[in-house]
Amino acid sequence: MRKPTCLAALSMIALAASAQAPAPKPEQVIAYRQSLFKTIGWNFAPMGAMVKGSKPWDGAEFKRRSIAVAFAAVQLDEAFAAGSDRGAVTDALPAIWENPDDFAAKLKAFRQASNALRVAAAGSDQERIKAAFGEVRQTCGDCHETYRAE
Amino acid sequence: MRKPTCLAALSMIALAASAQAPAPKPEQVIAYRQSLFKTIGWNFAPMGAMVKGSKPWDGAEFKRRSIAVAFAAVQLDEAFAAGSDRGAVTDALPAIWENPDDFAAKLKAFRQASNALRVAAAGSDQERIKAAFGEVRQTCGDCHETYRAE
Repeated sequence: MRKPTCLAALSMIALAASAQAPAPKPEQVIAYRQSLFKTIGWNFAPMGAMVKGSKPWDGAEFKRRSIAVAFAAVQLDEAFAAGSDRGAVTDALPAIWENPDDFAAKLKAFRQASNALRVAAAGSDQERIKAAFGEVRQTCGDCHETYRAE
Repeated sequence: MRKPTCLAALSMIALAASAQAPAPKPEQVIAYRQSLFKTIGWNFAPMGAMVKGSKPWDGAEFKRRSIAVAFAAVQLDEAFAAGSDRGAVTDALPAIWENPDDFAAKLKAFRQASNALRVAAAGSDQERIKAAFGEVRQTCGDCHETYRAE
């Protein structure tokens, strides 16, 4: 038997370690995904109420919630892992995994819009913030239209 | 009738607006709370696997996950609102709302420890990171022991 090189030995160790840490199960990915959308909704609703005027404007609260949404948007990256189209009740449609490039583009649009909202909300220009909020809502709708069950 | 001052008029508008934006229902708070703990667990498990060596060390991944936990820890602040001790199945024990000061102190300890882990994980000193991770785990246990159902 050939003596393994140092690199090969390290690879084997890495493989062994990987084998001991199994990937999350589909139902775990789904639960995580739903938890992120719950966080998004929790923070999105009060911002929406402020934008339409049914809740008093609170710039500090808006800023805090915009950060939460922008951060959740980034985290969504690993919440649609292959195989998580089934395994638990989910509103995510199979079309997501059938059109990975288009879905990734829509997810990116949401990420960018929510980051732009975060940047706007760090300032105090309410009209700018409201416009940025509208952009985020648009990206939500664009994705839900095709990729979320009614 | 006395003409209301501008400030009084604004206060009335603010009150009316508040009335139109009802506070989240207990079951919504519980669902949000559970979503934050789901996010924490999702990110905590792979860090734990790296610390014990059952998953290859990945400093960038560790850093990213430590940020997610630290941010969720901050968000927990509004996830134990009064009245959210019931309304849906929850592991949160009534003791939380019976001992608000102690619970707040334990939540603060978790927030501080997870922030310290985030700071450690921004560097590359694995021993320091592992020690900081142990501190976070300790604060989890300290709180669960008293305030979470078995």
